Amino acid sequence: MSRKLILYIAMSLDGFIAKKDDNIDFLSMVEIPSEDYGYADFLQSIDTVIWGRRTFDKVLSFGDGVPHKDKKVYVISATKTGKVEHAEYCTNAVDLVRSLQQKEGKDIYCDGGAEVVFDLLRNQLFDRLIISIIPHLLGDGIRLFKNLDIEQHLQLKRSISYPSGLVQLWYDVKKKMEENGS
Amino acid sequence: MSRKLILYIAMSLDGFIAKKDDNIDFLSMVEIPSEDYGYADFLQSIDTVIWGRRTFDKVLSFGDGVPHKDKKVYVISATKTGKVEHAEYCTNAVDLVRSLQQKEGKDIYCDGGAEVVFDLLRNQLFDRLIISIIPHLLGDGIRLFKNLDIEQHLQLKRSISYPSGLVQLWYDVKKKMEENGS
Repeated sequence: MSRKLILYIAMSLDGFIAKKDDNIDFLSMVEIPSEDYGYADFLQSIDTVIWGRRTFDKVLSFGDGVPHKDKKVYVISATKTGKVEHAEYCTNAVDLVRSLQQKEGKDIYCDGGAEVVFDLLRNQLFDRLIISIIPHLLGDGIRLFKNLDIEQHLQLKRSISYPSGLVQLWYDVKKKMEENGS
Repeated sequence: MSRKLILYIAMSLDGFIAKKDDNIDFLSMVEIPSEDYGYADFLQSIDTVIWGRRTFDKVLSFGDGVPHKDKKVYVISATKTGKVEHAEYCTNAVDLVRSLQQKEGKDIYCDGGAEVVFDLLRNQLFDRLIISIIPHLLGDGIRLFKNLDIEQHLQLKRSISYPSGLVQLWYDVKKKMEENGS
């Protein structure tokens, strides 16, 4: 079994990960001091992080530098090259993931945004989706799931309901050959 | 407490209720003979059903006539008038719901589609959302939640995970006055 590519992300019930201006204030309604929604445990299982450039800029805007100093961090950008601290710019998410999956290692964490998710979904590269559904209708903004011309069947692995109202859904993505029974 | 307006509907994880041609075959993957996902119990709690015209036509296409013979059934259409069996055409979902909520009765069940949901959400008329998430990425089609210019906060009431992988989420919609603590 090669290392899994995992999408771990939060969205509103109506499917948005941020407002159009990248504002993610709606996430604060489920921020509770002693509750990390399994994030620390999840981070133990991965050694590589992939961000889109826009998501990365949002992370940098928090002013604490590049997180995940103990991991390989890749930022997908059509134009930027080089590094920011330990984060490395990379032009193509699909090539990157295919290359990473040839190597030994822990699982790979994709944290968005929507453009990178779109490219990876379209190429059927995700092995697992861990989606935290925020009890909120954001109305508009950036959709996690853009329109795609393929369908993919999922297998529910876990569903965890938290006191804040956040529901975390774990799905394995069924690959074509698994669906054929092999 | 006046009668509640409840949205009870299924969507794929990526937020679609049907393909663009109204095909809903993806729902068959969670159809299991002995499992109704609480639907019969839910029907006990309501006495009125609201459909959009397009959803209604889909229901009629199954060839079994108009369901819910023991309930008031309204079909929202800008152009059609009169009745089909016990179903009554009605031009405006918002006016209809406001009028129904002035009367005594059990809760009101909105079964979609997306146009009617949009009108009712925009006017903040829903009291409860019961959303069954199907373990599937449909890719494209008709989105349950169109873009809206308002936000609404939700309170998770229940989360039920079924062996088929369907997860049913129950939310109460927080009304403005409740959010202000009154």
